[in-house]
Amino acid sequence: MTPSAPKFSYTLKATDGRARTGVISTPRGEIRTPAFMPVGTAATVKAMMPESVAATGADILLGNTYHLMLRPTAERIHALGGLHKFMNWQKPILTDSGGFQVMSLSALRKLTEKGVTFRSHIDGSKHELTPERSMEIQRLLGSDIVMCFDECPALPADRKRIAESMRLSMRWAQRSRDAFGDRPGYALFGIMQGGLEKDFREESAEALKNIGFEGYAIGGLAVGEGQEAMFDCLEFAPGFLPEDKPRYLMGVGKPDDIVGAVKRGVDMMDCVLPSRSGRTGQVWTRFGVLNIKNARHADDPRPVDENCTCPACQNYSRAYLHHVFRSNEMISGMLLTWHNLHYFQEIMQGMRDAISEGRFDAWEADFHAQRAQGDIEPL
Amino acid sequence: MTPSAPKFSYTLKATDGRARTGVISTPRGEIRTPAFMPVGTAATVKAMMPESVAATGADILLGNTYHLMLRPTAERIHALGGLHKFMNWQKPILTDSGGFQVMSLSALRKLTEKGVTFRSHIDGSKHELTPERSMEIQRLLGSDIVMCFDECPALPADRKRIAESMRLSMRWAQRSRDAFGDRPGYALFGIMQGGLEKDFREESAEALKNIGFEGYAIGGLAVGEGQEAMFDCLEFAPGFLPEDKPRYLMGVGKPDDIVGAVKRGVDMMDCVLPSRSGRTGQVWTRFGVLNIKNARHADDPRPVDENCTCPACQNYSRAYLHHVFRSNEMISGMLLTWHNLHYFQEIMQGMRDAISEGRFDAWEADFHAQRAQGDIEPL
Ligand SMILES: [Zn+2]
Ligand SMILES: [Zn+2]
Repeated sequence: MTPSAPKFSYTLKATDGRARTGVISTPRGEIRTPAFMPVGTAATVKAMMPESVAATGADILLGNTYHLMLRPTAERIHALGGLHKFMNWQKPILTDSGGFQVMSLSALRKLTEKGVTFRSHIDGSKHELTPERSMEIQRLLGSDIVMCFDECPALPADRKRIAESMRLSMRWAQRSRDAFGDRPGYALFGIMQGGLEKDFREESAEALKNIGFEGYAIGGLAVGEGQEAMFDCLEFAPGFLPEDKPRYLMGVGKPDDIVGAVKRGVDMMDCVLPSRSGRTGQVWTRFGVLNIKNARHADDPRPVDENCTCPACQNYSRAYLHHVFRSNEMISGMLLTWHNLHYFQEIMQGMRDAISEGRFDAWEADFHAQRAQGDIEPL
Repeated sequence: MTPSAPKFSYTLKATDGRARTGVISTPRGEIRTPAFMPVGTAATVKAMMPESVAATGADILLGNTYHLMLRPTAERIHALGGLHKFMNWQKPILTDSGGFQVMSLSALRKLTEKGVTFRSHIDGSKHELTPERSMEIQRLLGSDIVMCFDECPALPADRKRIAESMRLSMRWAQRSRDAFGDRPGYALFGIMQGGLEKDFREESAEALKNIGFEGYAIGGLAVGEGQEAMFDCLEFAPGFLPEDKPRYLMGVGKPDDIVGAVKRGVDMMDCVLPSRSGRTGQVWTRFGVLNIKNARHADDPRPVDENCTCPACQNYSRAYLHHVFRSNEMISGMLLTWHNLHYFQEIMQGMRDAISEGRFDAWEADFHAQRAQGDIEPL
C-alpha cells in the first residue's frame, strides 16, 4: 500500500490493565481510542452544527442506515456525493447495519434466513433489508466503517433463542463480508452476539475471526440487561476478540457505563444519550446528572460546571439555561447538547491520557469520587 | 462629556435622495445605519447562538419587554447582571415598551389613562404596565435604547379613535421621558403615532420634538395596512422628525418593505420575519422567497444562493436543507435562520454602501431586477 492509497488500520499504543488506547487511521482522518461516537441519525447530530460536534473533540460520527434508507434514501445521498458531503462532516463516519433499528422501530417485520421485510415507521412503505442490501446502502452512503447486518434478541431470552439468533447473525456476517468486497480504505466490522452466555460469545467470536474483519463489535448488550449484567459479560467478551483490531461496544452509554467498558477492554462506543439528554434538559457533569428545569436553577448565576470549557458553561448561567429550557427555546437544546457532548469527549480524553500514562485506576477512582459528591449545593 | 463617559449619539454620514446612512454610537458599540435589528424576544434570537447573530453583521438586537417581564422577569435578569450578560450579547440592545405586545398577546386587557392591566398569556397572572413601570423594566434589563410606552389602534380605525390614541401616547411619552430620568450612555426614543393621517402624524411629531428624545420611532405602521399605504405614510412621516436623530420604523419588514422604508428616510428597523421564516422553511434570497419544503429541492445539489457566504449556502445543498426540514431536524431552523439573517444584513450593507457612494437608485433598481427574475430554474 503506497502513501497515495491510505488504508484502514488500527494501532494499539498502550494498555493499562485491560484498558487500551490507540489510533484508528482512515483516509478521512484518525480516530483516537477509546472513542465516543455521537449519533447523527438523520444526517445531523440533533441541535448541533457539525463543526461544533468536531469542536467537542469527536473524531467520528455514527449514522443510522435504517433512517437514511427511508429518508432521504441511500440512492439520493449517493447521487449528491455521499453522506460526508451531504451533511458537511469530512471526518470518518460509521454506519450501523439497520438491523437493530428495523427491529425496534419498524412495523410488520418479517424475519427469514434471507433477511427482514418491514414497513417504514414514516410512511408505511414496504422495504427489505438483507446482508447484501445493507452492504449496498452503506457503500452508497460512503461510510468509512460499515457494520455487518445482524439480528439480536431482546433480553432476557432463552438459550435456544439466543443461540439460533447468534448463528443466523454469523451466517449473515459471512454474507456481509462477501457482499462488502474489496474496498481499500474502508472497513467492515463483524458483530459478536450470544447474549450474556459465555460459550455463545466465544462461539460467535470464533466464527467472526474465521471470516476476518477490520474490527469487531460487541452487539446485543445495552438492551435492558442492566449495568451489572453488561459488565459481567464484558469481563470475558472483549478477550475473545483479536488484540490487534478495534473493539466496539454498540449503544453504550452513560458515563459510568463508558468508563466501565473501557476498563474492560472496549475501544469504541456510541450513544444518543448526550444529545437526547441535552434536548430534555438533562445535563451530565463530572458530578453526575442534573435537570436544568428544576426551580433551584432559576436564580443561579453559576455555570453548569465552572471547570468546563464548553460554550454553555463559559458564556451562560444556570439561570439562563433554566429560562430558555422553560421557554422552549431552541438554544436550550443547542447549548445543553454541546455541553453534554463536550463532557463525554472530555471523559474519553481523560481515559486516553490516563491509559497512556499508566494511571487508569487512579483516574477511575477520581471519576467515581467526583460523581459521589453530587451537584454543587443550591445557593 | 469626557472620553471616559461615552455618550449616546447619532452622526449622519451621507444622504442620497431621502435615504440616509450614518452611525449611532453607544458605550456598547456602534450601530451602522440603516440598521436591521434581529428580534431576540425571550433573551434569544430563536435557533441562533448570539455569536452567530453577530457574524451575520447585526450591530444591535431587539428584546421584548412584555415577554421578559413575564419570564424570567426583569428583576431576575437585573439580579443576574442585566440582559446583555444574561443572553451573552455584549453589543447594543433595544427593548420595546411592552405596549404593542400587551395589546396583541395578553388576555383581559384594560386600558386607562394610567396604563394597561392584563393577564399573562403564559400563566394567567395579573400585571400592570404604565409608562413608569415600562421605564423601570427597561432600566432593569439594561437596554441601551429604551422605547416610550405607547398605545396604537389596529388599522383601519376612524380618525377620532386614531387621534385619541395618539394623544394618549403623547401624554405617555412625556411620562416616559420624566420617568426615564438622566441616564448618560442610554437613549430614550419617542414613538410617533397618528395612523395614516398626515395631520395627526405632524401633531404627534411636534409633541415628541417638544419633549425631546435621543431618537424617534414611527409606530403604528406594519399593522396590516399594506405596503402601499405604509409607503404613502412614509412619504411624509419621516420628514416631520428631526434630521439629526435616528428614525426607527417598528416591525418592518420584508426585504422590499425595508428597501422602500430606507429610500424614504428610515434608519432602523426590526422584524421577526427572517428568524420566523427560517423555522418554517421560507428562505429569502436576492431572487425573492423560496420554500425549502417543496419537492423540487429534494435532489438539488445547488446551494440556496451560490453567491451567499452564509454557512447554509457555503456548506449545504438545497437537497440537504430540504431533507432536514422534512425530518423536523433542528439544524433546519438553525441554518435557514442564519441564511435569512445574513441576507437581511447583506441588504443593509448594500444600502449603506450605495447611499455613501450616491448610487442608491441604481442599487434599488438592481435589487428589484434580481427579485423579478425569481428563483433559479429547477434542474
Ligand atoms: Zn459545559
Ligand atoms: Zn446563505
